[in-house]
Order: sequence, then C-alpha cells, then structure tokens
Amino acid sequence: MNPFQPRTDDMMFILQQVLQAPQQLQALASDTEADTDLMQQVLEESGKFVAEVVAPLNRDGDEIGAQWKDGAVTMPPGFREAYQAFWQAGWPALACAPEDGGQGLPAVLEATLYEMLSAANHGWTMAPGLLHGAYECIRHHASDELKATYLEKVATGEWLATMCLTEPHAGSDLGLCRTKAVPLPDGRHALSGTKIFISGGEHDLTDNIVHLVLARLPDSPPGPKGLSLFLVPKFYADGSRSAVVCERIEEKMGLHGSPTCVMRFDEAAAWIVGEPGKGLNAMFVMMNAARLHVGLQGIGLLEAAWQKADAYAKERRQMRAPGGSAKAGEADLIEQHPAVRRILDTQRAWIDAGRVMAYRTAVELDIARHHPEPQRREAAHRWCALVTPVLKAAWTDQAFHGASACLQVFGGHGYVREWGIEQIVRDSRVAMIYEGTNEIQAIDLLLRKTLADAGSGLLGLLDALDAELGESPQALRARAGLSRFAGFVRERLLPGTRSDSAAADLPQRLADDFLRAVAMLLMAWAWTRIGTTPGADTARWQGARAAFWLRVWPEFEMRMAMMDETLAA
Amino acid sequence: MNPFQPRTDDMMFILQQVLQAPQQLQALASDTEADTDLMQQVLEESGKFVAEVVAPLNRDGDEIGAQWKDGAVTMPPGFREAYQAFWQAGWPALACAPEDGGQGLPAVLEATLYEMLSAANHGWTMAPGLLHGAYECIRHHASDELKATYLEKVATGEWLATMCLTEPHAGSDLGLCRTKAVPLPDGRHALSGTKIFISGGEHDLTDNIVHLVLARLPDSPPGPKGLSLFLVPKFYADGSRSAVVCERIEEKMGLHGSPTCVMRFDEAAAWIVGEPGKGLNAMFVMMNAARLHVGLQGIGLLEAAWQKADAYAKERRQMRAPGGSAKAGEADLIEQHPAVRRILDTQRAWIDAGRVMAYRTAVELDIARHHPEPQRREAAHRWCALVTPVLKAAWTDQAFHGASACLQVFGGHGYVREWGIEQIVRDSRVAMIYEGTNEIQAIDLLLRKTLADAGSGLLGLLDALDAELGESPQALRARAGLSRFAGFVRERLLPGTRSDSAAADLPQRLADDFLRAVAMLLMAWAWTRIGTTPGADTARWQGARAAFWLRVWPEFEMRMAMMDETLAA
Repeated sequence: MNPFQPRTDDMMFILQQVLQAPQQLQALASDTEADTDLMQQVLEESGKFVAEVVAPLNRDGDEIGAQWKDGAVTMPPGFREAYQAFWQAGWPALACAPEDGGQGLPAVLEATLYEMLSAANHGWTMAPGLLHGAYECIRHHASDELKATYLEKVATGEWLATMCLTEPHAGSDLGLCRTKAVPLPDGRHALSGTKIFISGGEHDLTDNIVHLVLARLPDSPPGPKGLSLFLVPKFYADGSRSAVVCERIEEKMGLHGSPTCVMRFDEAAAWIVGEPGKGLNAMFVMMNAARLHVGLQGIGLLEAAWQKADAYAKERRQMRAPGGSAKAGEADLIEQHPAVRRILDTQRAWIDAGRVMAYRTAVELDIARHHPEPQRREAAHRWCALVTPVLKAAWTDQAFHGASACLQVFGGHGYVREWGIEQIVRDSRVAMIYEGTNEIQAIDLLLRKTLADAGSGLLGLLDALDAELGESPQALRARAGLSRFAGFVRERLLPGTRSDSAAADLPQRLADDFLRAVAMLLMAWAWTRIGTTPGADTARWQGARAAFWLRVWPEFEMRMAMMDETLAA
Repeated sequence: MNPFQPRTDDMMFILQQVLQAPQQLQALASDTEADTDLMQQVLEESGKFVAEVVAPLNRDGDEIGAQWKDGAVTMPPGFREAYQAFWQAGWPALACAPEDGGQGLPAVLEATLYEMLSAANHGWTMAPGLLHGAYECIRHHASDELKATYLEKVATGEWLATMCLTEPHAGSDLGLCRTKAVPLPDGRHALSGTKIFISGGEHDLTDNIVHLVLARLPDSPPGPKGLSLFLVPKFYADGSRSAVVCERIEEKMGLHGSPTCVMRFDEAAAWIVGEPGKGLNAMFVMMNAARLHVGLQGIGLLEAAWQKADAYAKERRQMRAPGGSAKAGEADLIEQHPAVRRILDTQRAWIDAGRVMAYRTAVELDIARHHPEPQRREAAHRWCALVTPVLKAAWTDQAFHGASACLQVFGGHGYVREWGIEQIVRDSRVAMIYEGTNEIQAIDLLLRKTLADAGSGLLGLLDALDAELGESPQALRARAGLSRFAGFVRERLLPGTRSDSAAADLPQRLADDFLRAVAMLLMAWAWTRIGTTPGADTARWQGARAAFWLRVWPEFEMRMAMMDETLAA
C-alpha cells in the first residue's frame, strides 16, 4: 500500500477560498503575515518533505518500533536521519519568533504542517509535536540564564523536549503528583520521583533532550497549587549526564514509533521555571495550542485512513451495485456500492469541516496575539477557548471511529496488517486520551467555559457564527440549530443546573452530549460556509456536503433530546 | 489483570426469570429439553471450564500467537492441551444429536457456552467455533460413506473443521470463486486453487482437520450457482496426507491466537458434499446459527471489556467526583465520576439486552426444529431469520465501540498492553467483518427479509413483540416506537421503494439505518421485559436500564429521521 500523500490543493482551497486566511492575517501588525503565494509555497514545500521523507518510514515505525535497552532507546530505521533533516530545514521553528531563531510565520502554517505529518507518520511526529509547547513555556517563564542556553535550541528543534507530568497515581488528576524538588545550595533543585507516559523521554534523534517536569517543593500545599515546574536536560552544558533515567518503555496498542517512557529522577539537578507553586499555570499557557494540535492529528489520521479506503474502493470489484455499470457477469467497483459510498462521504464530511474549524482556530490564535484591536483579540481568545476542546474531543473520536469505518471498506483485508489501515485505527486511539481525555474536554467546555460565565461567551460565539451564515437553504438549517441550542442554554440548561434541587453531578452528566451538540453546530457552520464558497459546487465537495446533512447532522437533535431528558429526570 | 470470570448468575437470571427458557424448552417434543436444574448445572460446569482452562491462556494467545513454519502451525502455549480437554469432556457435542455422539442439549446452552468462551479467549474459541456448522453441513448433505468416516469425529470435535470459502478476488462475492474441481476416475474430485482467510486451516490442536471447500466443477455456469461443496481432510483414512498446504498465516490487527491461513489446494482429492451446483445452499443451512454465534462473540467480548473497566473503576482514584464521598484532600473512585458511570452503564445496557435477544433466538432455533405445532415452528423461523442479522451486526459493532469506551475508563493505562483491554478492542474488530460484513447483514434484513415479502414477516414479528410488552411506563415508550416504525414501513418505506421514480440504490442507502432502528426496538423490548421481571429492581439492573432509555434509545428517533430524509431526497 502506498504511503500517505498530502493533498495540498484541498487544504489551500479551505485556507484561501473558504476562510480567506491570507487576508485575515495580513490585517495583523506582526511578522505572522503571509500572502497567498507564501502560504501556497510553504504548504507545497512541507507537503513534499512529508511525502518524501516522513511518510515512507511509517510502516517500519509500527512494525519495528522504538526499542529500549539498558536505558537507551533506539528509534526505528530512518527516524534520526529524517528528524535531523527536519530541524535543519527549519520546520520546527516555522512559527517561532525571529529573535529566537524562528521564521515568525503564522500558526496556521504550523497547523497544516502538523496535520500532514500526523497523517503520514503519527509516531515520528510525536517527537517534534511537543517542541512548540516547550518553546512557549521556556520563552514566557524561564529565567534569562535558562533562555540563553535552551530557548534557541528548543525553538529550532536542535534539541527535543518532553513534558513530564503524569505519575502512576496522577493521571488526569495532576494534583496528586508526588515528585519532590529539594533546594540545592547552588540555587538549583534536586528532583526525585517517577514520571510515566513520557513521550520521547529517551531516544537517539537529537544530541540532547530538555525535560520540563512538574514537582513539589518542600512544605508546599497538597493539590495542584503545590506544584512547580522545573527544567532538567539529559546533558548539562558541561557535557555531564543528569540523573534522569529511562527505566523502560511501554508496550502499547499502537504508536510504536514513539517511545512512551517511564522516567526516574534520582536527585536530578534542575532549574525552576517560573514561580514556585505556579507550575500548572506555566504549562497551561500552551494548552489551547497543544489541544488544537491533537485535534489536527485526528483530522490528519482520518484523512490518511480515507485516502487508503478511497484508493481501495476504486480498485476492488465485488458484486453488482444497484444502478452500477459493470457488464453482465462482472462485478462493480465497491465505491459504487451505497454502503461504501456512505462510509467514504461521511468521513470526508468530518475531515473537511474539521479543517475549516481547525485552520480558523489557528488563524484566531494569531489574531489573539497580534490583532491591533483589543476587542478583536478578545473575540479570538473566546473562539480558541471554546472551539479547541470541541476540536480535540470530537475529531480524535472521529479519527478512531472513522478509521475503523474506513477499515470496513477493505473487508477482511482491512484486518490484515499489510494494508496499513489497521495501524491507523490503533495509532489514532491514543489521541482520545492524551492532552486531557475527551471526557475532560467536555467538562472543560461545559463547566469551565459555559456555566462559569452563564453561557455568555458561548452564546456570543454562536451569534457571531450565525452572522456569518448567509441565507442559503443550508444556512437556514444551521441557523435553526443555533437557535434551538441557544434557547436550550438560556431556558433549560442555565436554570436547570442552577436550581437548588439540581443534583451536584448534573453538569457532568450533560457534558459529553453538550460537546457533541456544539460539534454538530460547528460542522453545520463549516459546511454552510463551504457550500456557499465559489468553486465548491463540484463532486469533490458535494458528496461530503450531502453526507454531512444526511448522516452526521441528525446527531444534533439526538443530543438535544438526551440533554432534555437528563434535565427532566 | 485477572482473566475473565464468567458470571453465570447474571446469565441464569435472563434465561430463567426473564425468558422462562426452561419452560419453553420443556414444551418441545425432542431431546433438547432441559429443566432449570440441568441448565444451572451446565452453565456452572461450562463456566468453570472456561475460567480455569481457557481464560488463563488468552494473554499468551495474543502475545505469542499462532506461529507458522514450513507449512506447519504451532498454536500458542497451552492451546492444544486445553482443546484436548475440551473435546474429551464432551463440550463440542453438547447440542449435537445423540446418534452422532452428541448430548442433544438445547442450542441455548451451546450459545451460553460460546459466549463465555469468546469472552475468555476469542482466539482459542475460533477453533471449535466452526465445528457446529461443519457438523450440520455434513449431517444434512454428505453421503452415508462420508458420514461414516467424518460425522462423529466432527460432532465430538475430535477432529476440527474449516470452511474454505474466500479467495483473493472473492470476498463478500463468493460467486467470483475460481477454485476448480476436476472429476477423478474413482468418483472423487481433484481440487486446485487458493483460499484465503481460512480460520484454523492448519494447527496442532487435533490429529486431523476436515476442510469443507467451495469449488467450481468443469462447465459449471459463472456466478454462485456454479459452486459445489467438497470435503477434503488433512489426512485420509489410510494415513496419507492430502495435497492441501498452508502457505502462510496472516499478520493481523488481533485474534493472534487463531491462525488465519492461506490454503493451497494442488489437485487435492476430495468428495462432493450434496448436489453439484448447490454448494452455497449446503453452507447456508447453518448461516443463522453461525451468525448468532458471532453475535454472541460480540456480547461475550463486551462483557469481558466491561468486567475489566468495572474492576479498574472500583480501584482507581482520581479527583473529587461531584457529590462524591472522598475525604478532604483525597480523590474519589473513578466509578463515581459521571463520565465513567455513563460508559459502564451504557455497555451494561447493551450486554444485558443482547443476552435477552440472543438467548431467546437460541431458544427459537430449538423451537423451529422441535415444536409440535407447525405454526409455532414457522414463527420461530421468522424470529431467527429477522433477529439474527440484527444481533450479528449491532452487537459486534457494539463489542468494538463499547470495548473502546471501556478502554477509555483506564485513561492512558488502557492504551498499554499489560491491562489487556486493548486486546479486546483489537480482537473484537474482526467480528464486524466475518460471517458476512455488518453492511451485508443490513442488506439481508432490509432487502431479502423485509422488502421481499412487503414487510409482512417483520411487521408480524413486531406485532408479536408488542403483545409481550405489558403496560408498564417503559412498555408504552417501546410501543410508541414499534408503532412509529410500523407506520414508517407501511406508509413511507414500501411505497417509497416501490415507486417508479425510486432510485435503484435507495434500499441499500437505507439499509444501515433500518437495521439500527430495528436493533433499538429489540433492545427496547428486552429492557421492558427485564424491567418488569421480578428481582430486577436492584442496582444491578436499574443503572443499565436507565442508561438504555437515556443513552441508547434516542438513536431510534435519529435513525428514523435519517430514513425519512433519505426517502424525501
């Protein structure tokens, strides 16, 4: 089976025709502007690198995987060479500030790069995937002394970085972390403890690795407010090795190209990053960007699965399709069978709407940072806060379930490893868990971002979406959904959850359905926008658009009914 | 993680309290009767065998798997010993006729046995799973000479059997089969060709293997009517080896304990089974039973996943749950978190309703064979024909998606192999494909079994279900669904698909939604029955019942809306 091939024309159509991203970014007072030609050029160059260098390594990444021996991790064949070429070509620094060695390009081009990389080779992409978060963290919180040594190395990706958060007893609940940080006479701290699920905790891709570690200072209060953030490299500036050991790597369902490490810290000398007790704040600074990237992994993996299924459906013949074109005694291509058509068009509906939402969110990230008007920056912050958890949860969910649907197109062959489709099902499953489980995204959206401000942010966002819908027949349908939802929030959700008799767990019982309903509304908006874009009246877009309204959108009403019943119970 | 433990009290509750299976079977004029004590005894004995002998081999079955070398297949550690103990204890022959060496017990006890076996060790269970179909096939179609050599060996399971249907170009479309059968002077036929996806085509579990092979006689017409069925053993009666070779085994996503073989036939001398050109008929004799068993695999695998998630949720503490009971500064058990509760209760809703439907179907299989009244036998045939494809499709779908939901309960640990939950996700995926893909089940239900008789069989079945509902509040809800559905069939589906202007592919575009809507109705019936059963007013049943109505049933209205829109388009 051929490796993944980026289709940059599809991506450019959404960036330029649907979203007018170049025009939006040119209004910004910053380096992060990019005209259409530059966007096109970066997309094509990155697509070329992904297709030629990264995609061909995906099978070995899965079959051979990362190997642990005596504390060292050997990456799969070709991974180191590809990574060295990647950072030397400047890709990790695409969106970093020029003063840190970056190119200052807009976040949306980093988004499209990582979508393609994830589609091509999810395991390999985990390594640079954490860089940008570490870069932002060091840039905003580290001392000048630390920055001098680490900022440019991490910005350019010459050194890779980790985020050491989870412990055996502290998964979703970081407040339970026990790793200790004891002050040393030289101003540093000795870290002791064990961290698990550390992606890229050890490997041979780069000459050094920079660990960002959550730990607890002596006499700090229990819970999340007692946590501080520390930096400890694999090798110090003098070349000596730190007391950080990779004890083993996990045997996983998939993602074998990324070593998931158990890291032991034995009084490892580390520097504090930011203020004592503010460790979680320092890490959460990059949470929206990191969650957007996981959403993009979902979109990329679903695109990769769709490409495989689409190619197979155009080659494989089985049975006559109703209204098919096969000659007497012959079989039709399976893409002509309605059951196969349904799978392909429905996944396409998710991928295209996902791109519209994810690229728009990336543009809003730049607007939030660089727009001259405070009010527009505020609206962009609101967009990112509300849309990001939906992208993360709904599109990683769809990556797994949609990849499984694409596997079904292959029949029994889909279950066999050589076709590569089952790898996507296995690899994609982890994205529903990491960077905050999808259930936690739903709680974030409903409790922290909707109920906390009595719905004003979300309702404001929905009004803004409504204003961009136009007056097409689809727009009327999307508008009816927005209106039904806003009425539900005002008349049922807010009074129902505030009522004195409401059970304490009522919001959490609603959260998953609430997030799904919002996902449907965002997709309805996206498909309305695509549907009225000049050039989208072709078969390429129409099958997916029809599949959205027929096969996906009906979930909206189902989720509303489930929430109505939960509130009535 | 502890291996699967059968919970026979739950199973017995459904058999006896909900379905009155012993009473139903005692009305039959056959050997297949069983009173409550006998049922209880068989359930407990089989549960003991499953728990003690089969379940502990599951991890090695996955991690080590079946190994191919030079045409021979070595099964995972312990598999042969367990299988020898299994057949010698008489388990494969449980429901076979006494004159063939069987015990003549009812099909429903075979159903519960295979549900438990699949839950404990799906890979191992594939080997005996094919026996009963081969037994029925030989019993009804083979010559007396063949029966004398093979029938009792297959009935008792002393020799295992295969079904050699699929070829590289003939998956769902068996009519494309090319394997040739050329008459030999001695009345036998020389088989030549390659078959793929042959479960247990080669192994070391038994001393001989009996292959049932679809092949094409010279001058036979193209398509399915040109296929005949043949029997060829691994070893002939004189001890010589047949020209049947296992060329390789597939590397698969899961089910590593079952070798999926590529079998090459090099002029292998074989006997015809049944009449020339009637090969598919001979195999389809056992299709309902085989598909019911795959549905039971789905139920068993989902039960296994649920047990793991439930046990983990009762041990793991993370964060305060709303309304939780943890002391200040401590975390609650995750089973107290609504997101986890929702997953566990929803899967329980599927498992319990699945058991009601599957056990009832097994009882109907016995009624169809042995009831003294032709009209009751006819109704039982109708039940099996209509309910079986729904069980196969909806419950294998739920096994995979529900096992994935159970994995989510573990957070990151669910993605790690040592917990065993990801194995269930991988293993269960194949059941959506084999024994007729789930899409083919949907086409079978709608086109062959509903539209072909203008809905009379299905509407008759729904009337019969309605009559068994009673008058509880849930019954009214289920009845409203049945009525909505019957109206849809009469007023929209039948006229819409018969209309001259209807597109040829319209029924196939409706098929998946149609099957899901029927699945919801069957579950509504099952939960209404459970809900009004004395003894089901405990927490064990109430959480799942509530989850059904709140979390599962709303899909019914969504599917109806999707079909309405498809017909209106």
